[in-house]
Parts: sequence; C-alpha cells; structure tokens
Amino acid sequence: MPDETNHSPVRPVFYVSDGTGITAETIGHSLLTQFVGFRFVTDRIPFVDSVEKARQTVAEVMRAGEQHGYRPIVVSSCVDASINAVLAESGALILDVFAPFIAPMEVELGVARESRVGRAHGMVDFDTYHRRINAMNFALAHDDGIALNYDEADVILVAVSRAGKTPTCVYLALHYGIRAANYPLTEEDLESDRLPPRLRPYRSKLYGLTIDPQRLHQIRQERRPNSHYAKLETCRSEVAAAETMLRMERIPILSTTHASIEEISSRILEDLDINREMF
Amino acid sequence: MPDETNHSPVRPVFYVSDGTGITAETIGHSLLTQFVGFRFVTDRIPFVDSVEKARQTVAEVMRAGEQHGYRPIVVSSCVDASINAVLAESGALILDVFAPFIAPMEVELGVARESRVGRAHGMVDFDTYHRRINAMNFALAHDDGIALNYDEADVILVAVSRAGKTPTCVYLALHYGIRAANYPLTEEDLESDRLPPRLRPYRSKLYGLTIDPQRLHQIRQERRPNSHYAKLETCRSEVAAAETMLRMERIPILSTTHASIEEISSRILEDLDINREMF
Repeated sequence: MPDETNHSPVRPVFYVSDGTGITAETIGHSLLTQFVGFRFVTDRIPFVDSVEKARQTVAEVMRAGEQHGYRPIVVSSCVDASINAVLAESGALILDVFAPFIAPMEVELGVARESRVGRAHGMVDFDTYHRRINAMNFALAHDDGIALNYDEADVILVAVSRAGKTPTCVYLALHYGIRAANYPLTEEDLESDRLPPRLRPYRSKLYGLTIDPQRLHQIRQERRPNSHYAKLETCRSEVAAAETMLRMERIPILSTTHASIEEISSRILEDLDINREMF
Repeated sequence: MPDETNHSPVRPVFYVSDGTGITAETIGHSLLTQFVGFRFVTDRIPFVDSVEKARQTVAEVMRAGEQHGYRPIVVSSCVDASINAVLAESGALILDVFAPFIAPMEVELGVARESRVGRAHGMVDFDTYHRRINAMNFALAHDDGIALNYDEADVILVAVSRAGKTPTCVYLALHYGIRAANYPLTEEDLESDRLPPRLRPYRSKLYGLTIDPQRLHQIRQERRPNSHYAKLETCRSEVAAAETMLRMERIPILSTTHASIEEISSRILEDLDINREMF
C-alpha cells in the first residue's frame, strides 16, 4: 500500500469479480500504488455472478463506507452489465476494468464481445492445466539438484544456496508452464572457475542468480543460525566466486536482491527469449 | 485463446509494460477471451522503461502488423505518458490499461497521481518478500504430510493423493503468503468415517478437495501406469470414502475437476474467510 502514515485516512477499496478477482486486484493494486499519501484497506469479493450476490456486495460496500467515513472505491471485473448496474447502487466510485476497452476492441475487430460470465476468467482446459502441473512437479523433482537429468528442462537456474532459485522455479512453472530446474553451486563447484561438468551440456539453458551477500547472510542466518554456512564471510566468498565463474562462462546473471519473483521470472524469459503466455 | 479455428485470421497482440507486464497481460488476456472467433498471437514485452526501448517496441509491433496483415493491438501498462506517445507511433490500437481510471481516481482523492516508473509494479519490500518465501518453504516442508506439526498452518488441505493439494498450497503461498499444509488421506484413513486423529485439533483450518474419479485415474495412470494405485476402481472407492468422511465431519469440500488453481485458491480464502492481499 502506498503510504503507511498512520495519520492519513483509510479509504475502503473492493475488488469485485464474477470470477477469482485476480484481474480486478491486479489492475486495482497497480492503480492504487500511483496515489501516494493514502491508506487503502482492500477486500476482494470473488464469484459475484448473480444479482443476488451483487446486492450482498452492495450492502458490504455501503457498510465499509459508513465505517470509514469515505466513499468506497469498487474495482470491478464483472463482465455482465446488469451486475455492474447493481454495484453502482452502492454509491461507490465504480471502476469497471473492461468497459473502456470494449468499444475500441469491437470497432477494431468488427464484432460485439460476448459477455458470458466465466469466459473472461479462463475456464480450465485440461491440457493447459496438465502442462502447468507437470511443470510444477518437474520443478519440485529438480529442486536443489535432486535429480540431475536436465534434458527436459527449459531453464536451469544456477546459484549458491538460498539465492532465490526455488521460488523462481515454482513461479515459472505455475505461471508459464515452464520446466525450470535448479542447480545449487556447492563449495566444491566454487573452487573452480569453470562450470560444473554436469552443467556443460546445457549451456544455452543456464541462467545465473546472484544476491547481495549481506542479504544472503540474513536469509541463511534464519535457516541455520550461527553456522559456517550462514556466516557473512562465507556468503561473501561464495557470491564472489559464483559471480566470477558465471561471468567467465558468459552465463547471464541477475541479482535477486531488489527484485520480486515476478520480475526475476519476467527477466529470465526475456533474456532467454522464451515467449510463453501466462496462465 | 478464444477460438482455435485454423481458418480465422491471426491478430497480433502485444502486452507492453515498464515492469513485468503482468498487469497488462492479465487484463489483456481477459479482454481477448471476450472476443470469440479470432486467433490472437500474443507477445509480452516487459521493462519498456525508456523512449529508446519504446522505439524498439514500435519497430517490433510494426513488423508483426506487416507479417500478419492486420493492425496490431497493444495493451500497455506503461505509466509514463511519453512512452505511450511513442508506442502510438506504431499505428497499433493502443489500449492503455491505466488511463481511463486516472482521472476519476484523481477527482475522488483530490490529488494527482505520481507516475514514476516502477511504482505501479510493486518494488519489493523485504518483509513482504520474506513472508511469501517463508510461506512457500512451509508449503514444501508440509507437502504430503511430510511434517505433521500443523500449529503454524493457516490452512490444511485434505484429500486423496493427486487431487490437486500441492499446486494449490504452493499457489496460496506464492500469491497470498499463506502457510498452507496438506494432508494426503491414506487407505488406512479412509477405512474410518472419522477424521484422522492427527487432524482433529485443527478442525477450523481444514479444507477438503475432491476430484472426478475418472480424471484422478488419468492423472495417477501417468504417474504410476497400471498400478493398483492408478486403477479406476481404486480411484472411485477412495474418492467416495473421502467425500463421505469429509461430509460427516462437516469439512468444506471443493471439486478441483473443472477449476483452475486460481479459482480453487480464491474459493478456499473466501470459504475460510481469510482476507489476504495478493502479491
């Protein structure tokens, strides 16, 4: 949320959807972050797919308005116009995330949109689901070098322990159906300036992650307090050795220190030139 | 994509962003699914945060327009107006996902938005990142009943093997920072109509998943072909026993057969009344 100043008033915001509410929340959140100095209290109301549920939502929105003393903001991704009409009865500011784009798209494509509820939120097709789940199973089976057959991997993340490999692999699998494996660089690997032999056949799939040693120290400290593994000195020398090796081998490197998992994943796809639709 | 008819023309669509492109892709994808009978070829161009990169994007967009013989559609979540102005030079239909909502928000809040690039895309704060990663580590450590201390769990998913517990737990962790554990019902558990004793102290956190036996059979068959475990008969009796037990114990149940991971996760939060912002 934009600003955590305790003196600023609290504005109630609702993400209302006939589906999961992910579209409404994604755009609503991005929009709110562009307004600084406010505190927003947000609530997601998914599966509002009938007039009756819309009326319940109106009651909830109006209660929040009274409680906070401010007109609520409703970010709606409901496709059905009759549901949005009911939501408007709440007196809230309604931001309909699709409405502004429907007319230009209809003109461009020369057809009217079909506003069946559910359609906008991607009903599941089994193949897609399957690809995604298989990719996730792959990520878990190939986590931290457990399995070492990388023939089927789309990407292999290479980094020292706790630099962010696992969450990135899982994210790539869940969101893009990408089979991402990861290889943790061991102290033994780091004694050499060359790629570990097992990785050499897969050079074009390799992607290095690095991290600020201070941050790495913090993370490892939580996991194994006061161990050799967690020492700042250990973190410094491992990170330095890993970066040297990856640079010598011309493997792309990204620092995870100030990046979100989404950003890291997006950069990897961009750098390895993988074009994959999100789920 | 809406329609896979091979005869329909292919329309090029670009999701362009100064950040990851997730906002643009989320709304763009939902929008496209409302137009049936078209084939869209989509490409995400993230990190377009300078006029120079915008010009490269324009060139790419124009190439796609020539290649497909149709005016491209650009869904842009770039916050900086000067970048959107450059994108417009491509001649594409530009759908600026924030533009329509800025004016009403400015009126409502009585301030101008701040359009610094990067702001809209959630720069990382360490606590948030931490919560999310810890939740993911929790999900992996508590996957398939590996660890059985559920005191710290926010949610415990209960289901027979391969009904969708693991991907849902990981999704809940990555997107909502929720510590989701899961408990696989064994044949032994299913001989009784009562909750397994280890789950009883955590009744309020339990959530049951079920699945169509035919689908379960398909999934297990891929994993362990022609095993007792994968047999349709085994799947049928396990699912029936699990549903009976969960109903007797009044644990909420959701079928994963036709739901996406996003939908399952969203329903669980809704049913257990957990209000958590998405990451």
